[in-house]
Order: sequence, then C-alpha cells, then structure tokens
Amino acid sequence: MSAFETMTGNTEFEVGFNIPAKPGMNEQDIQTPCLVLDLDALERNIKKMGDYAKDHGMRHRVHGKMHKSVDVAKLQEKLGGAIGVCCQKVSEAEVFVRGGIKDVLVSNQVRDPAKIDRLARLPKLGSRILVCVDDAENVDDLSAAAQQHDTTIECLIEIDCGAGRCGVSSTQDVVNIARLIEAAPGLKFTGIQAYQGAMQHLDKYEDREAKLQVAIDMVKDAVRGLEAQGISCELVSGGGTGSYYFESNSGVYNELQCGSYAFMDADYGRILDKDGKRIDQGEWENALFILTSVMSHAKTDKAIVDAGLKAQSVDSGLPFIYGRDDVEYIKCSDEHGVVQDDNGALKVNDKLKLVPGHCDPTCNVHDWYVGVRNGKVESVWPVSARGMAY
Amino acid sequence: MSAFETMTGNTEFEVGFNIPAKPGMNEQDIQTPCLVLDLDALERNIKKMGDYAKDHGMRHRVHGKMHKSVDVAKLQEKLGGAIGVCCQKVSEAEVFVRGGIKDVLVSNQVRDPAKIDRLARLPKLGSRILVCVDDAENVDDLSAAAQQHDTTIECLIEIDCGAGRCGVSSTQDVVNIARLIEAAPGLKFTGIQAYQGAMQHLDKYEDREAKLQVAIDMVKDAVRGLEAQGISCELVSGGGTGSYYFESNSGVYNELQCGSYAFMDADYGRILDKDGKRIDQGEWENALFILTSVMSHAKTDKAIVDAGLKAQSVDSGLPFIYGRDDVEYIKCSDEHGVVQDDNGALKVNDKLKLVPGHCDPTCNVHDWYVGVRNGKVESVWPVSARGMAY
Repeated sequence: MSAFETMTGNTEFEVGFNIPAKPGMNEQDIQTPCLVLDLDALERNIKKMGDYAKDHGMRHRVHGKMHKSVDVAKLQEKLGGAIGVCCQKVSEAEVFVRGGIKDVLVSNQVRDPAKIDRLARLPKLGSRILVCVDDAENVDDLSAAAQQHDTTIECLIEIDCGAGRCGVSSTQDVVNIARLIEAAPGLKFTGIQAYQGAMQHLDKYEDREAKLQVAIDMVKDAVRGLEAQGISCELVSGGGTGSYYFESNSGVYNELQCGSYAFMDADYGRILDKDGKRIDQGEWENALFILTSVMSHAKTDKAIVDAGLKAQSVDSGLPFIYGRDDVEYIKCSDEHGVVQDDNGALKVNDKLKLVPGHCDPTCNVHDWYVGVRNGKVESVWPVSARGMAY
Repeated sequence: MSAFETMTGNTEFEVGFNIPAKPGMNEQDIQTPCLVLDLDALERNIKKMGDYAKDHGMRHRVHGKMHKSVDVAKLQEKLGGAIGVCCQKVSEAEVFVRGGIKDVLVSNQVRDPAKIDRLARLPKLGSRILVCVDDAENVDDLSAAAQQHDTTIECLIEIDCGAGRCGVSSTQDVVNIARLIEAAPGLKFTGIQAYQGAMQHLDKYEDREAKLQVAIDMVKDAVRGLEAQGISCELVSGGGTGSYYFESNSGVYNELQCGSYAFMDADYGRILDKDGKRIDQGEWENALFILTSVMSHAKTDKAIVDAGLKAQSVDSGLPFIYGRDDVEYIKCSDEHGVVQDDNGALKVNDKLKLVPGHCDPTCNVHDWYVGVRNGKVESVWPVSARGMAY
C-alpha cells in the first residue's frame, strides 16, 4: 500500500493526478510538468556507449543512481551490453536486485549496522553484490554480517583519485585493507574503485585528460602494490561520461561506470570533446527533457511555465529550452519558471522541452518517465528507486 | 499499487528500504538520510501563528505547498485554527480534498483543459474550491467546466504586487476580469490574491515593510475600484512568514497564507525581525531537519555524510548543522555532503541534524516525515502530495 492509497483509498493511477500520461496517448496530451524520454535518442545513446565498451574490451557497469530505473537499466543490458549496475545506496541496490539486475555494486561506503545487514542479505536473491571500502574498521562489520547470512560480499577498495570525498589516498592503505578483506570470512577482495568525479565537468578535454592521468597513475601504483603482495585485481572500475575514453585506454581499468551519457543534461552537454565540440552536439543526444506548459502570460514579455524547483534540481544551473533560441528560461521559483519571450512567441498552454541542468537529482524528484516515439506515448516507466536514499 | 509494488510484489513498508523509521523506535535508530520533525517545536510554531491570526482577526489559510502533508495541515487546523489550505497544483488540491481539508485554494493559474476539468470536479467531494485568475480567457474555460460538472469554482483575481510572475498589474484589469467572473455561470468572484513572494526573504524588516506597503496600496486601490462597480471582496488573501504582520495590520487583507513558519529553514531563518534579531532565534523554532549520518572519515579533517543533492534542494544555499559550531557543511554532491571537521569531532555513524536551505523543495524529495519527541519516534507521516506537480 502506497502513502497515497493510505490516505485516499484510491488504488488506480490516474493521468494528471499521480501519473502524467498513459501509453498510446498523443504527446500533446501529456500532463505537465513531467520527465519525457525521447526513446529513439535514448536507444542510440545506449547502443553507442555499449558498442564503444565492447570495442575496447571494457565491461560496462551502468550507473543506476542517475536514472534510478529498472526499465532503463534493462534497456542498457539489452541494447548496450551492460553487465549490471552500480548505485550509491543499499535501498537502490535492493530495487535493482529485486528488479532482476544480477550484478550490483554499491559504489559507496556502507557503515550503518542496519544497512550492512540489509546489504549482506541481498546475495540471497541471486545477484552478485559488491561494495566499496575505505576503512579497515568496516571490514569486520561487513564480514560479520556476511557470515551471519551465509553470503559473500565482494569488496572494492575505493581510492580517492581527486574527488576529495570518500576513499583512501595511498597504495599502502589499499594493500593494508586488501589483506584484511582477503583474510575476512564472507568477504572477497575483488579490486579497485577509482572514479574521478571532480574532473568530469571540466570544459576542456585536455584538462580532463590531465586530471585523469593522475588517477590512472594512482591506480597503476595500487595494482602494482597489490601484485607485489600476491593480490590480484579482478576488477578495476571507474569512468564517467566525461572521461570513459581515458579509462578505456589506460591499460589498467577494465570496467566503466557511465551514467549521464544515456540522458544528457545541460551541465554535461557543455563540456567539449577532443575536437573542441560540445558533447551534446554530436557525441551524445539529449534524450531527457522536462516537459512544461505555459500557464500564465500576463506580462507581454514573460511566459510563466509550470516547471520550477519542484520539477528539477538547479544545483548545476538553470535548464535550457530545447530547440528554441527565441525564448530563454531565466528564473526559477518553487512552482514556476520564468521564460523571457521578447517576441511574444509563446501563448498559454504551449509546451516546451527543458534540458535540465543536472539529470541525477532532477530524475529523483519525479515518479515517472514518459517514453515518447513518433509523437505518441510508448511507455510510462516508474523511477523505480526514487527516494531510495537509505 | 505503487510504482515500487509494480516491480517487486512487495506490499509492506520496510524500515531502511522504503521508509526511514517506525513509531516507537529510538531516535538513534532512524535510517538516514530522512526528514525529521521536532514535534514539540512544530506544535509551538503552529499554535503561535494560530494565536496571532486569531488575535488579529485574520483567517489563516496555511500553505500546503510547503509541507505537502495532510497530517501537518490537520495539525494546523487543530492547534492553529487554520481554516483550510492553499496549494499550487490541482493534484495537490486533490490530495488535500481527499484527505479531508474542506477549504482549498489553488493559489495559482490553472489553464490546461484536463487540469481545469479535474478542478471543476473537486467540489463534488465536499470542499470549497478556489482558484486564481489573471487572464480573461481563463474565465470562459473555468465556467464551462464548472457548468459541465454542476459545481461552483470560486475565483480570486491575482494581482502581481512585486513577484513579476503571474498576476495582473492594474486595478482596471482586476475590475474587467471580476465583471466577467460575476457574469459567468458556475463561477463566483470571491476576492483578491496578492502574495508578495519576492520580498519575503529580504533581510531587513524595514525593506520588507517598504515592499509590502506597495502591495497594500495596489490591493487597496483594487478593492476601491471594485467597490465603485458594486463588487465586494469576501476574501483578500496573501502574506507569508516574512510579512504576515504587515498584511494583518493593513486594514485590507483578511486572510493569511503562511507556510514556512511551521518548519523554518536556513534561508528564512536568517531574515531579521523588527528588533534586528534572526527570526529563527526567537520568533520561530527550527522544527524540520534532515537527519544525516557520517559514512566516511578517510580524510582526518573531513567527515562525509549521506545527505547530498538527493536529500535536499540547495537552490537557496547549503544547509547548516543544527546545534553545532565546531563542524560545518561545506559542500554537496549527489549523494554526499562534505563536513569540515578540523578538530576530528565526528566519527563514522555519528548523526547530525541539518537545517535545509529551503524547506519547500527539500520536503518534495522525501516520502516521509519522521516525528520525534523525547528521543522516540512518535509518528511517521507520508509527504502526501510529494511529486504531485500536475
């Protein structure tokens, strides 16, 4: 029983109340604001990255924390050869495992006793479960829980290769924790997590390359340090939409973790490829949009649309309006967006497609993805792990 | 059936999976990140504003778009004498009406034909329904829908008194639209909506007072203009947490629409009362917190916590850590917050209470409010209208 049903007794989804569309509906009848996926663009993005990974001998563990959708993850497995997902929370992992994803990495630390217990139970549902470790103290807790549930938790040691967040900073720490994991019943040392998040959004290809080279050097040093102790890495995992070509050609990484390539957003879109071209102008297509409607035009030069802060996250800047250069989204409040419309090009009930500033936290405020092809709603997928933050 | 059930077949809420706590649990066992309400502080805030409104002869229509919770709205009716709610979307109004709120204003324009149809059906469920109008064209559509469903929709004409968003800008426009409403079957002209949102967050009391005086003057002029045509205003509605004393003493407003006073947040908290004191240091108490846990401390001077962009909106700035001046929340990414911890005061699994920058869009990313009193979980309330954006 959902929170909603508790209160109202309603057990059906109703278009416009708790769901924005139904399959078969014309695109123009979709209720706004909502997330819309251009299914053709999405499929092309997924296939392109899948082909790249395959051609470069890389496993592709797609980042499920971006879309939080079992349906999208399964499309990435089917069309893009994804080997599974990574995600950031145990509750997300639970959603993906129960949804049928067979190889799930929590690319984050799990420290709370109740969360460790839930993690240790997950392999019983038939999926391979991996987690990141950056602290020797965590090893005992993970091992105890795995033993209690008679399961195996695979561990990647996280290296902080530039984000300044979680992760160890030296090869010695990697080796020390790896030895503890190898000796811990119920755990398996599987390799290294080294995702350089801070560099993904640097505009220039050369700047990203320089930052990533530092990460690659750290990872190579760690792998050599482990080998000197007779410990081998089955997986060396990392790489995002702004860096996957560096990891793929590093000679040390063997698994990618790209997320945003599938949907694109305004902040990622403006970074430049090696030819100096925006990555949303060739490398990847915008497949994710916030569909919004004009709901007031009382000022002649301003159209007010129905997508504000509750339809998106503006942490990485405002959205841009897709396919239009005559109107601009200039301001955002809780429920409204202000669109500069100097030429009076818009009228009430006109719809616009916004490319969100940052896809991950924007997807997390919506319950549904409306998949559109040829002007018709083809699919309505739940944002399966929305709100799964625990 | 919820989105989640569709996928997993699970029909129970499970602590740590899709719910952060259960009643009776000790506060320290709450799963993070989640929203926590200090019930004592919440009740004091609600009672205080209720007493103020009563003492000043004002109706208080509490703003439901802030908390999106039927349970909180009912507490505001019970302890604060609230006469009903306002909200911003038809789907929110549907939640409040079905939850038993008897007087519901959509303090926004409703223009989409499907949304107008849903709005016109709502009075059948036994609640008084009001909506804002800022365009003559809207009157015909609202009237047609009300006639079709044999209901009455009450209309407030929205005046733009400074927000620069929706709303008409002249008394002449108010009078023209009011006449159309008076003549339209199925509609009732009920008064004026004039909420000055842009001034609520100005730090200085005197600056807010000056801006609000402009609004009051516009509203008085409009009321006089209507009276000259024999049209009376039953309701003149507006006023927020940063201005309610101005509207209450204006001699023209008779209804308040405060929201944030009940929960408080960092952005509102820093505005000053007439004695130059922050309003969160006496006028209102912080009742809303994001509870978060330390989940990595691999760097000695940085504690990494589990509340990032998916646990809050940072549009109005980062959260502050409640009751601590030795540690500071300095950075935010999708799933992580970075807490400066120069003295090593924190250890893994320590919990912190964050006061969010902006309560409204922060509440909209969570599914639950965990109500705490005396160290125990007393209530777990759904964020009933979460995601209800349509």
